[in-house]
Amino acid sequence: MRWLQFTADKTSSWGIVEGDRVIAVDGDPFGEWQRTPRTHALAGVKIELPVVPRTFYCVGLNYLRHLKEAANKRGEVPNVPDRPEVGYRAQNALIAHDENVVIPANATEQIHYEGELVVVIGKEAKHLDEHNAMECVFGYTIGNDVSERTWQKADRGLWRSKNADTFKPMGPWIETSAYLDKMETVVRVNGKETNRFRTGDMIFGVKEFIVEMTKYFTLWPGDVIWMGTDGASPNIRDGDTVEIEITGIGMLRNRFVAEK
Amino acid sequence: MRWLQFTADKTSSWGIVEGDRVIAVDGDPFGEWQRTPRTHALAGVKIELPVVPRTFYCVGLNYLRHLKEAANKRGEVPNVPDRPEVGYRAQNALIAHDENVVIPANATEQIHYEGELVVVIGKEAKHLDEHNAMECVFGYTIGNDVSERTWQKADRGLWRSKNADTFKPMGPWIETSAYLDKMETVVRVNGKETNRFRTGDMIFGVKEFIVEMTKYFTLWPGDVIWMGTDGASPNIRDGDTVEIEITGIGMLRNRFVAEK
Repeated sequence: MRWLQFTADKTSSWGIVEGDRVIAVDGDPFGEWQRTPRTHALAGVKIELPVVPRTFYCVGLNYLRHLKEAANKRGEVPNVPDRPEVGYRAQNALIAHDENVVIPANATEQIHYEGELVVVIGKEAKHLDEHNAMECVFGYTIGNDVSERTWQKADRGLWRSKNADTFKPMGPWIETSAYLDKMETVVRVNGKETNRFRTGDMIFGVKEFIVEMTKYFTLWPGDVIWMGTDGASPNIRDGDTVEIEITGIGMLRNRFVAEK
Repeated sequence: MRWLQFTADKTSSWGIVEGDRVIAVDGDPFGEWQRTPRTHALAGVKIELPVVPRTFYCVGLNYLRHLKEAANKRGEVPNVPDRPEVGYRAQNALIAHDENVVIPANATEQIHYEGELVVVIGKEAKHLDEHNAMECVFGYTIGNDVSERTWQKADRGLWRSKNADTFKPMGPWIETSAYLDKMETVVRVNGKETNRFRTGDMIFGVKEFIVEMTKYFTLWPGDVIWMGTDGASPNIRDGDTVEIEITGIGMLRNRFVAEK
């Protein structure tokens, strides 16, 4: 089942995607909801952010190839995580499918994409174990963890390098069924494939992260966990369009434009 | 003016503190609001979190003494920030005045407080300069940046060391007038003073942070910036009560209890 938030006829609501139609829903998928008679062509609605998370979790280094390439660029030995440790991104940076990533005026040319699977939490949860960890998952969407690498190296933390306004496209919708072992993530720049990896090839999987995180954190409905990326990115320029497609989930597309 | 969120007679709302009374308000201070005839004794209401920020900003190292003491403990030379760089904390960890900080079952004895001034944003804002930066500030509250120092040293990031559930007490209310140059932060453990510093003795002030942050970030109403702390903390134990008082703002009090 595919859930999205959308705007049509100046009204925003949750909806269910069925083929090329959107069925508007009263309520929301984390609580009470029911289908309405209102339907729209998917191509005719404005797709909104699927959620604004209360807490915005992400995993920095969770694929071996990405980790090794990043270490090589710094002339360092890769430091492979020995346990699932989570980080954060910032809500100000979120934008929806088909909205523009704005490259800040003082950024360097080192603007990169990172295509990521995003876990969307559906239930309040703490102290989960390997048997019930996946029960708190509502579904999956797609994220682009846009990064300015010069700032990432120069700064003490990941504030502007990862969290400048518009640097976190997420969407287009939430798919509730996923087969992580069979999924591929494919990235295209201006229609040309630049990256392809097995989505499930993570150092630590969704279940391991949820078990470890809920030792300390209460997860809330709408919280998201961005699961990291594999491979590297070319420099993305003013006017480029980046598409991230994950098998069975969908495709997240955003154009990059220079700040005026 | 002092704004708080509170619950009385099973109803939650915004209110204004006047002396020892709370005047309930319809609406909220970031939009339309008006006083109601309902008033309560301040001592008789449950004080709630003043805000749950959309983005939860914080400043890690912003007072020289704290920075030097932390570096000395690590046997390192203090690395004084040369520009205002911001970090993040996590919404799951927030609790209100008089709620309990729960020390996780597997934490070490190295549980510390950090008393901080908290800036509350009142207006959507970007690209502010030194002349208009302070116009986006709604007011000030108090934060306790509770930290587990063993985890802080052992982990790649600040996830559980700073963001375990209940590790971010904030409140009790938002004071809209403040005189940063004249304020002192005083911390007491079980009534005994353990720390006192000039609140305004920051390496970079509120204005400098807002100017730098809004080069990249849109600030939203209800966003918070925790401004860092000075000095050090003794180990806080099961049953201890920590009070953080800032001149003209108020006093944030929380008891620490061991997880069962």
